Amino acid sequence: MAKIENGGVCFPKGFTASGVQAGIKASGNLDLALLYSKEPARCFAAFTKNHVQAAPVLYDKEVLSGKNIINAVVINSGNANACTGDQGYADAASMAELVEKELGLGKFSALVGSTGVIGHLLPMEKIKAKIPELVKNLSAENSELFAKAICTTDTTIKTGSVSLKTSAGEIRFGGSCKGSGMIHPNMATMLAYITTDLRLPEDFSTEFRAIVNESFNAITVDGDMSTNDTCILLANAQSGVFLNDLGITEQADIRNALFDLMKHLALQIVWDGEGATKKVEIEVCGARNKAEAMQIAKSIATSSLVKCAFFGEDPNWGRIVSSAGASGVPLAAAKLSLYFEDVQVVKNGMPIAAAKEQLVQIVKRREYKISLDLSLGDSKASVFTSDLSHDYVKINAEYTT
Amino acid sequence: MAKIENGGVCFPKGFTASGVQAGIKASGNLDLALLYSKEPARCFAAFTKNHVQAAPVLYDKEVLSGKNIINAVVINSGNANACTGDQGYADAASMAELVEKELGLGKFSALVGSTGVIGHLLPMEKIKAKIPELVKNLSAENSELFAKAICTTDTTIKTGSVSLKTSAGEIRFGGSCKGSGMIHPNMATMLAYITTDLRLPEDFSTEFRAIVNESFNAITVDGDMSTNDTCILLANAQSGVFLNDLGITEQADIRNALFDLMKHLALQIVWDGEGATKKVEIEVCGARNKAEAMQIAKSIATSSLVKCAFFGEDPNWGRIVSSAGASGVPLAAAKLSLYFEDVQVVKNGMPIAAAKEQLVQIVKRREYKISLDLSLGDSKASVFTSDLSHDYVKINAEYTT
Repeated sequence: MAKIENGGVCFPKGFTASGVQAGIKASGNLDLALLYSKEPARCFAAFTKNHVQAAPVLYDKEVLSGKNIINAVVINSGNANACTGDQGYADAASMAELVEKELGLGKFSALVGSTGVIGHLLPMEKIKAKIPELVKNLSAENSELFAKAICTTDTTIKTGSVSLKTSAGEIRFGGSCKGSGMIHPNMATMLAYITTDLRLPEDFSTEFRAIVNESFNAITVDGDMSTNDTCILLANAQSGVFLNDLGITEQADIRNALFDLMKHLALQIVWDGEGATKKVEIEVCGARNKAEAMQIAKSIATSSLVKCAFFGEDPNWGRIVSSAGASGVPLAAAKLSLYFEDVQVVKNGMPIAAAKEQLVQIVKRREYKISLDLSLGDSKASVFTSDLSHDYVKINAEYTT
Repeated sequence: MAKIENGGVCFPKGFTASGVQAGIKASGNLDLALLYSKEPARCFAAFTKNHVQAAPVLYDKEVLSGKNIINAVVINSGNANACTGDQGYADAASMAELVEKELGLGKFSALVGSTGVIGHLLPMEKIKAKIPELVKNLSAENSELFAKAICTTDTTIKTGSVSLKTSAGEIRFGGSCKGSGMIHPNMATMLAYITTDLRLPEDFSTEFRAIVNESFNAITVDGDMSTNDTCILLANAQSGVFLNDLGITEQADIRNALFDLMKHLALQIVWDGEGATKKVEIEVCGARNKAEAMQIAKSIATSSLVKCAFFGEDPNWGRIVSSAGASGVPLAAAKLSLYFEDVQVVKNGMPIAAAKEQLVQIVKRREYKISLDLSLGDSKASVFTSDLSHDYVKINAEYTT
């Protein structure tokens, strides 16, 4: 596993960023962020599959349907620009254009992102007034300001970076994301921005999507996709290294490093929640294929009953097996094995006398892993989840629109 | 709407029942129940779609694969006979055979049902010892004993009945079900037994399934299907009335009466939960078809965020629209309308200035209805749900296996 450091989006060569206070958030916290590469960067993107999509998601998809080379992403926090109709879309486009003009870029060179409350128009005058300052402040030292400015209910900023020495020179990845373990009422969930100075081929999109599926799409808190979820990777080639020129082993190392970084960022989202007291990996192995393993793991990881049991420190295998059966994926009940860490509790679909004291110690930990073996094949997948606590209900019930 | 009375499974002609205490439950409550029709009854059944199915479900499906005429159903509570392997299956078969012998019936004349903790073998000696008493006590006066004996964590028994005068004579439906609004840890969820003295044709199974889908399958608490869910309808023809001999209008009245009864029983399950403080109907209308309407309604009704908002008495339209979009069904965000009772809060996918005070009053009610209009077609479906409360987490977290 690659060593993940604490650099952010400006860690790779050629990226600058900034973050300012535009007055979108009533709190007065940073709420407008800009990520910029002077050299055009190849863009890979994954968006929410929610059928109610926020204006910035619709705008970015429209831009990327025509090209995949961009220079900038401008993001506001405090307002999701979702359920805002045609005016919301026009505002998203306008936000991009303002940044393009200020940076002297051509049309469709910038993407936009928004996160915050649903159903309110963006305060465009406030945003417009701050674009010059946002651009003027661009600096390679601003990874942290950028990370702060995209946050909403996050209790900490979320950054990460990794570098690799290849036979063609050093290459770097950096990234930042936002999202709270306890998804906040009406707050758009997850935004992630990854940068690299590696040159990536256009067809890397397939691999990017696979990595997103096992990182940002493999975390769950409510099981709900938000209207704004976005994950973007920008590759500006400033390291001079082209992925395809490297040997098989080096290519694999690079993919693994990117996966490790994205997983590192994603896990910070699961584990950043005032309500979360447990961090549990649900691994489903012995599946016929990865999609089925993932579907079962998600069924377990989103079950309210299972998550209450995590909170209550109860090694409740019955709920886990029942949730697995309810996923819709055919399985053979009589072949199931279940483990809490390395302690087996179910064999051939039936409970076995497990070391009770060991089990009790495992579920008291803050982090542990549960493995369900279907004994149907060789595929596996993991989902990372938190528990359902008193505080989850408290915070989500007491918020008032 | 047909008038639902409080009769139970013995309300229709020719049905008797009993309930005894076999010592399966540590509490000493009734835990063994029998439903019997001397005249063979046509059986319609719907079982859990969970891929981990309890032994009684597997046994009943096996019996019903060969015939659909039976005389009896024997049910135990306190032990689900789930995750019990081959021995569990043999025990289920043995339970049926013991009843068949005691009643002087042929093989495969009785079905079985179980509900309770998962992963323990049935105490067959205790059950065997009580079968003679169970059969001896059969009486048309025992609807309530039967209703009690199938309960687990239910706080009340759940019964209902309805009668109709047709041109060919009176016909009756009766029924009983068990299941707690807050699905209890490791307790198998939902068992329902409906009886009628009407003669039903074999192909009524399609209609039965449709009614189950809009009653017992249209309630949700956790979104989890249990390993034991079973709904059985027995029609013994003792009224002398054959459905197919009646006119179209009378046939429709009978179907509606059965639907009303089954919905009445199903709603008692949603509303019976120590944790539940709200009873909310989620109606999705304007859908392309009923299946899509149901899928969206279930997505909303099982969202933890939505259910926390119910508990918090927060008219949080953003969570509802977002959950609808996350259901997987394609929809047009710009066409959505949302209502709390008759107060519209979203129009064309955007929030409108609703009468705030009216809204606040609606969500303070113990029961209310939310309607989402997709404006895509003419189909609709409703799901009935409860809220996610502090007590839900408390009770589900503090249970220890």
